[in-house]
Amino acid sequence: MNEQKQKVAVVLSGCGVFDGTEIHEAVLTLLAIEEEGAFWHCFAPNVEQMHVIDHATGEVEEGAKRSVFSESARIARGAEKLTELTEYDPAEFDAIVFPGGFGGAKNLSDFAVRGADAEVEESVITAVRSTHAMGKPIGFICITPASVGALTLGGEKIELTIGNDPDTASAVVQCGAKHTDCSVDEAVVDLKNKVVSTPAYMLGPGVADVRKGIAKLINEVLKLTH
Amino acid sequence: MNEQKQKVAVVLSGCGVFDGTEIHEAVLTLLAIEEEGAFWHCFAPNVEQMHVIDHATGEVEEGAKRSVFSESARIARGAEKLTELTEYDPAEFDAIVFPGGFGGAKNLSDFAVRGADAEVEESVITAVRSTHAMGKPIGFICITPASVGALTLGGEKIELTIGNDPDTASAVVQCGAKHTDCSVDEAVVDLKNKVVSTPAYMLGPGVADVRKGIAKLINEVLKLTH
Repeated sequence: MNEQKQKVAVVLSGCGVFDGTEIHEAVLTLLAIEEEGAFWHCFAPNVEQMHVIDHATGEVEEGAKRSVFSESARIARGAEKLTELTEYDPAEFDAIVFPGGFGGAKNLSDFAVRGADAEVEESVITAVRSTHAMGKPIGFICITPASVGALTLGGEKIELTIGNDPDTASAVVQCGAKHTDCSVDEAVVDLKNKVVSTPAYMLGPGVADVRKGIAKLINEVLKLTH
Repeated sequence: MNEQKQKVAVVLSGCGVFDGTEIHEAVLTLLAIEEEGAFWHCFAPNVEQMHVIDHATGEVEEGAKRSVFSESARIARGAEKLTELTEYDPAEFDAIVFPGGFGGAKNLSDFAVRGADAEVEESVITAVRSTHAMGKPIGFICITPASVGALTLGGEKIELTIGNDPDTASAVVQCGAKHTDCSVDEAVVDLKNKVVSTPAYMLGPGVADVRKGIAKLINEVLKLTH
């Protein structure tokens, strides 16, 4: 109990399930980190969103532009707890976690459009691979096991879950990763690679369901820091 | 345990602490409602935000416009669980709850600018007063005890908390309400008027702290439905 607080980096991709970070997943991630007695700091790439979706209609707002970084600051409650992802240094953190939402598949990579052929945003690749290279744990939530995890670490044959959707699972496998079905209240742990994943709103259906899997993921991620 | 699920209306005011709903408070409200075995549905007025704040800089985005309703849909995850506040019918719900954030003091009323002299948005007045008139409980979180509660029900001499900020407490009293200091992990219950309030991010500091007070508030609100 005398040890210093563990530090977890949380990577955001905007603010809103259809064009950014899934808001419930992000807040439940921050909550779980605090409840474990650990410390969180958010990061986001300073890039433009792929597009802006009016969440009341589901339609693209033609011509509208929003910054992934500025929108992510809505979840982080200002810039004090948010830093550009290019400045992330894995030596300063014990773990890194990616909440989901379409932002994870539109802004962190273009997986939503190109599937297994997607390109991952440069600062995201660096963050994932540098953390993995230092032997530190990484948590992937919702779609990010596919849209970030498999695309960056598929070559390591990491084991992941995105729930049980056959098409998304197939894309994960195409990237070289292994897919394991998982329920919303559980997390899949790849002990060797220190990678933990949970389906969250890939399955849902509710906040309280997603809460259980994310609490489990954070608990497993923090155990892997020892 | 055979009774039907209780239904709680949650009133949003945009998406982001500085110009809309405080995101953590809204998600923790939805989580607490589900964990109590109750059902939530969101409402928001279909009006323009007072302004748009770049949450990374804290500056107003000159010329930018956003709809309170569309931004609220980011928290509700689409329009399936969000309805215009003008359509709210207290007969269909067991309780109504207002998460905080500056949206509660900029979009639901103009309390942020005019304090105790503020005007409350028309559909908000109707929602609060019609719920109160039916003897159903109301929950106010963060700034909304002042920016909505005292302004609409001050005449009923309701008892409220906004934490311990003297200026905000004084505005509450000017509206005719009674102010009681409260810590972030507790809620103030006005049994007679069935009004419950908790300071949340008026005090903070963290997600896990705010979580406790909001869980308490939802528990007390649901007890008052019996």
